[in-house]
Amino acid sequence: MIQQQYPSQLLEKAVQAFSQLPGIGRKTALRLVLWMLRQEKEDVARFTAAIDELMSEVKYCKVCHNISDTDVCPICADGRRDQTTVCVVENIQDVMAIENTMQFHGLYHVLGGVISPMDGIGPSDIEVDSLVQRVSEGTVKEVILALSPTMEGDTTNFYIYRKLAPAGIKVSVIARGIAVGNELEYADEVTLGRSIANRTLFEER
Amino acid sequence: MIQQQYPSQLLEKAVQAFSQLPGIGRKTALRLVLWMLRQEKEDVARFTAAIDELMSEVKYCKVCHNISDTDVCPICADGRRDQTTVCVVENIQDVMAIENTMQFHGLYHVLGGVISPMDGIGPSDIEVDSLVQRVSEGTVKEVILALSPTMEGDTTNFYIYRKLAPAGIKVSVIARGIAVGNELEYADEVTLGRSIANRTLFEER
Repeated sequence: MIQQQYPSQLLEKAVQAFSQLPGIGRKTALRLVLWMLRQEKEDVARFTAAIDELMSEVKYCKVCHNISDTDVCPICADGRRDQTTVCVVENIQDVMAIENTMQFHGLYHVLGGVISPMDGIGPSDIEVDSLVQRVSEGTVKEVILALSPTMEGDTTNFYIYRKLAPAGIKVSVIARGIAVGNELEYADEVTLGRSIANRTLFEER
Repeated sequence: MIQQQYPSQLLEKAVQAFSQLPGIGRKTALRLVLWMLRQEKEDVARFTAAIDELMSEVKYCKVCHNISDTDVCPICADGRRDQTTVCVVENIQDVMAIENTMQFHGLYHVLGGVISPMDGIGPSDIEVDSLVQRVSEGTVKEVILALSPTMEGDTTNFYIYRKLAPAGIKVSVIARGIAVGNELEYADEVTLGRSIANRTLFEER
C-alpha cells in the first residue's frame, strides 16, 4: 500500500500520535483526528487536559496498589469491608469486574501483572513482596487467588502460594468450571474435567 | 448494565473524554486510558501536545479549503498542476483518496460537506460561493463533481451545476458503474442500469 501523503505536517503528527494507541490503525487515527478538527476547540482542550491531568496526578493505593485519587483507595479505607479477606488480581480492570459482581466484600491486592518469563516479567516485577508483607501483619486470614486460568496465571498462583505458606493462612483459588450459559459439549476437556472433580452440593435457590 | 464505578475521578474523567470519540465506547476508552498509564509520561505528553498543536495552528488553504500548514496548500501552489481543472470533493479524505490514484493532476475544491436538509446543512454552510467566485476568475475550464453518489451528493451536484451554468464552463461528474473487482450479479439495479447507459468504447490495454 502507498503511504498516504498528508497535506499538513501537523495533521501527520496528530495521526501518528493516535495510531500509536493499541487497536487504532492509521485509517481510524485519521478519522479521529478529522473528527476532532470539527469539534469546538474548548472541547478538544478538555480532552487533552483530562489525559494530562490523569498522567501527572494519578496515584496508586499504598495498600492494595489499585488506582486511586488518594493515598489509600476508597475500598481499603472502607471500614465496613471484610479486612480479613484479600483477593489477589492481575490488574485494575479485574478489581472493577469483581466489584461489579457485588459478591465480594473483602479487600484487594493488585499485582500489576503476572509472572511471564516469555515477556521478561519475573516475581520481582509484580507486587508479591508487598502482599507477603501485608499478610505478615496478621489481620489477613484468607487470600483468594483470582488470576486468569492461563499458564502465566497458574505459575503466579503457585509462586504466591509457596510464598504465603509460612504464614499459615488459608489460600483459595476461584472456581474453574463451565461458564454460566455455555453449552457443555463445547467446553474443553480440562475445564469439564475440573468441573466434575470440583463439583459442589446441589442447592435449591 | 450497571454503570461501572471507577476508583478514581481522574480515571473517570479521562475515560469519559476518550469515550466521546466516534466509535469508541466506555470499554475501549478504559482500555486506552489504562494503556496510557503504562506508557512513559513523556510519550503521553507528546500525544496530547500533537493534538493541542494541531487544534491551535491548523490552517485551511484559502484557495481550495483543504487542510494546510501554509496559507495556500502545496497542491494549489504547485505550478506543474493543471490550473484549468478543478475537482470538487466533500472533504479532506476525498482529496487524499483521489491523490492516491495518481490519475488526477488538476486542483481541488473542498466543500466541507454536502447539502443535507435532514442535518440542517444548506448551500450556505458549504464552500459553494467560493467555488463560483473561483470559477468567475476565468482560469478554470472544467469542474469535475466528485461527490459520493448518495441523495445528498446528487442534490449538491445539481445545486452546483445550476450555480455554475452562467459561467459557461464544462461541468462533469465522475463515472458511476460497477466497481472494479465486484461481481455483476450483486450490483444494484440503478448502478447496473447506469453502467449500461454510460458504456464506453472498449480499449485494448
